[in-house]
Amino acid sequence: MSADGSAAHPAIDAFPVIDGCLAVGGMPLTRLAERVGATPFFAYDRNLLTRRIEHLRRCLPDDVHLHYAIKANPMPAVVQHLAPLVDGFDVASALEMKVALDTPIEPDRVSFAGPGKTAGELSQAIAAGIVIHVESENEMRALAARATANGGRPRVAIRVNPDFELKASGMRMGGGAQQFGVDAERVPQMLGELATLDLEFVGFHLFAGSQNLHADILQDVQGKIIDLSLALAERAPAPVRHLNIGGGFGIPYFPKDQPLDLAAVGDNLERLMSRVRTALPEAVVIVELGRYIVGECGVYVTRVVDRKESRGEVFLITDGGLHHQLAASGNFGQVIRRNYPVAIGNRMGESAAETASVVGCLCTPLDLLADKVALPRAETDDLVVVFQSGAYGLTASPTAFLSHPAPAEVLV
Amino acid sequence: MSADGSAAHPAIDAFPVIDGCLAVGGMPLTRLAERVGATPFFAYDRNLLTRRIEHLRRCLPDDVHLHYAIKANPMPAVVQHLAPLVDGFDVASALEMKVALDTPIEPDRVSFAGPGKTAGELSQAIAAGIVIHVESENEMRALAARATANGGRPRVAIRVNPDFELKASGMRMGGGAQQFGVDAERVPQMLGELATLDLEFVGFHLFAGSQNLHADILQDVQGKIIDLSLALAERAPAPVRHLNIGGGFGIPYFPKDQPLDLAAVGDNLERLMSRVRTALPEAVVIVELGRYIVGECGVYVTRVVDRKESRGEVFLITDGGLHHQLAASGNFGQVIRRNYPVAIGNRMGESAAETASVVGCLCTPLDLLADKVALPRAETDDLVVVFQSGAYGLTASPTAFLSHPAPAEVLV
Repeated sequence: MSADGSAAHPAIDAFPVIDGCLAVGGMPLTRLAERVGATPFFAYDRNLLTRRIEHLRRCLPDDVHLHYAIKANPMPAVVQHLAPLVDGFDVASALEMKVALDTPIEPDRVSFAGPGKTAGELSQAIAAGIVIHVESENEMRALAARATANGGRPRVAIRVNPDFELKASGMRMGGGAQQFGVDAERVPQMLGELATLDLEFVGFHLFAGSQNLHADILQDVQGKIIDLSLALAERAPAPVRHLNIGGGFGIPYFPKDQPLDLAAVGDNLERLMSRVRTALPEAVVIVELGRYIVGECGVYVTRVVDRKESRGEVFLITDGGLHHQLAASGNFGQVIRRNYPVAIGNRMGESAAETASVVGCLCTPLDLLADKVALPRAETDDLVVVFQSGAYGLTASPTAFLSHPAPAEVLV
Repeated sequence: MSADGSAAHPAIDAFPVIDGCLAVGGMPLTRLAERVGATPFFAYDRNLLTRRIEHLRRCLPDDVHLHYAIKANPMPAVVQHLAPLVDGFDVASALEMKVALDTPIEPDRVSFAGPGKTAGELSQAIAAGIVIHVESENEMRALAARATANGGRPRVAIRVNPDFELKASGMRMGGGAQQFGVDAERVPQMLGELATLDLEFVGFHLFAGSQNLHADILQDVQGKIIDLSLALAERAPAPVRHLNIGGGFGIPYFPKDQPLDLAAVGDNLERLMSRVRTALPEAVVIVELGRYIVGECGVYVTRVVDRKESRGEVFLITDGGLHHQLAASGNFGQVIRRNYPVAIGNRMGESAAETASVVGCLCTPLDLLADKVALPRAETDDLVVVFQSGAYGLTASPTAFLSHPAPAEVLV
């Protein structure tokens, strides 16, 4: 029996309530569900996205660039909406690159990171003229070997595997042995080799982890990233122009999570920037964020198909499930299952009246969207809302599992 | 550091080796990869599927029917291949029903189970004339309300949530409070109501769990299922014609797993059948299996794109990953990550020469296909094979994660 039965969560308060019904993009969910024509669906709020970027701009130094990591939510309408609001995009595949290039953004503001880029992906990236974050010496050589007249000299940044890690993160992606980047201690020698190849060096990419809610830990690791970058820059064959320091800013999913103190992170970054401006006058410092930009701006909406009582427990059986929102079911790499914030979207004015579990329509006990939460009494046709669903929702879920129809996505 | 570094696993021995290269469907993987035209891909062995069914037929009583649960692997070619070999199919969605009905199988040998069936799905199932396993009283009433002249009287079996569970299973789906089926103690009253509705009662479905490797536990639970079924049958409005006792037969994924003693399960079932034949002379007993039929007959094949050493560890970076084979990465509901059996498909004649980790091409440390296993020294362009990938592989994975191309599936 989980203790986090309360529906109270700051993420819920971000969405207005109109006549007892949660509204996304100003439209009550009951009407939005009719407009979409079917449940389940994901809905992202355009205005919340804009406000999120404004909040980031207020807190971060003026000359820090803000990139959106498309992998968090590659819906083309979301990416198009963000294009004029951010300074660049990071992509992780050829299809994400296409989505980025379909916006008005300049190619040199698009970067492509990720281990295991195929020969085809490298050729596409060269032709596009985007910045390629090489993840190994082999990848650097493969890139030089594929360079053609089509894209000019490939623009290269080296992804560095630092010799420190981001503690207390959802995921650690730096420090120790890693599939990501080049071990920091090998980078000087690699820079020497890079200088002999027909490649255009633009800078470094250092990323230590993701989903971190602790400003002090982020401040500490950003300081170390700047230290390491300045040391490596002394060995670079050309001035550093791009310095991507990653992101790692987390959002609160669970009841005890405290939101990140973004102002504190921004103040620290301003102090670090004064060092960078002096040491690397041509460098643009880039903060790359995915989940932090889109995560809180989206909801997953699924309809109650059956209300069932079994041996004293209430189950709200919905037409959705883990095939659409795997992380909310607690089955995507999570060790301990905890509930995402949920609500009955068309009963926002009603008080909690019972403890119920929200399950999906799949034939597996894994298909649990909310375990024993306090909710108003819900009936068939009511709309269950799973919050914090704007990032790593639909695309991070096994949509073909049991061959149900794919849900719609709307930007409202 | 995991200890299960050995590549030895009985699942590997099921596939022949031709000139040092693993063969699927008699074709060496290097040639098959050329035929497919791209990596990664899933390959299922037609001959192994046939032999698996033969093995089941040898061990199970002659008059027990064998159904294939399509959710384990809905690839149409696989389902078509199995159609003449099994006695029926179980489906979990309208699309799975279509795949089943596209084979020559008779509709009354197709059953549709699962909570949260939508009104549309119920109408489709009625029109198809398949057997509908109702999961609640509400669903039974909804079904009766939607019955039309198109499909005749809807054929109904009641899915029962038993008052016992299948211990030591990968998943428990019976006992206690459940979203699945109707609590056994409520079934007699439900049968009374069913008799008053325009529905054709055909029997019961009792399913207690899945992925169990212990013959003694399966024997015990099958005995309890028969006991409960015979007791419920006394309250039925018509003779029981279908008695689906589920499956739950597991396959060995990990080094210490012992294969299920199928002969022992079959012997016990033969003893139980003598009771069923007397008490329910019109009943067909159905064993419904998914993973046990297809799981060991398929492999996932991915190509090494980069070989990387980082701080003393070797990483084989492939063009595949958890977006295709989530369960093998240990991130689909597993609490403890263990390695699926893996091999370098084109180096089957070589001895293990190093400890390496196989990772995918995604920007997440979750994307680990094999953690520190003993393998021959592998190079770029080698083919990594992940065994036990015939069930809950592609369709149970988040294929759109990071927007890479979907892998092919071939039946060879």
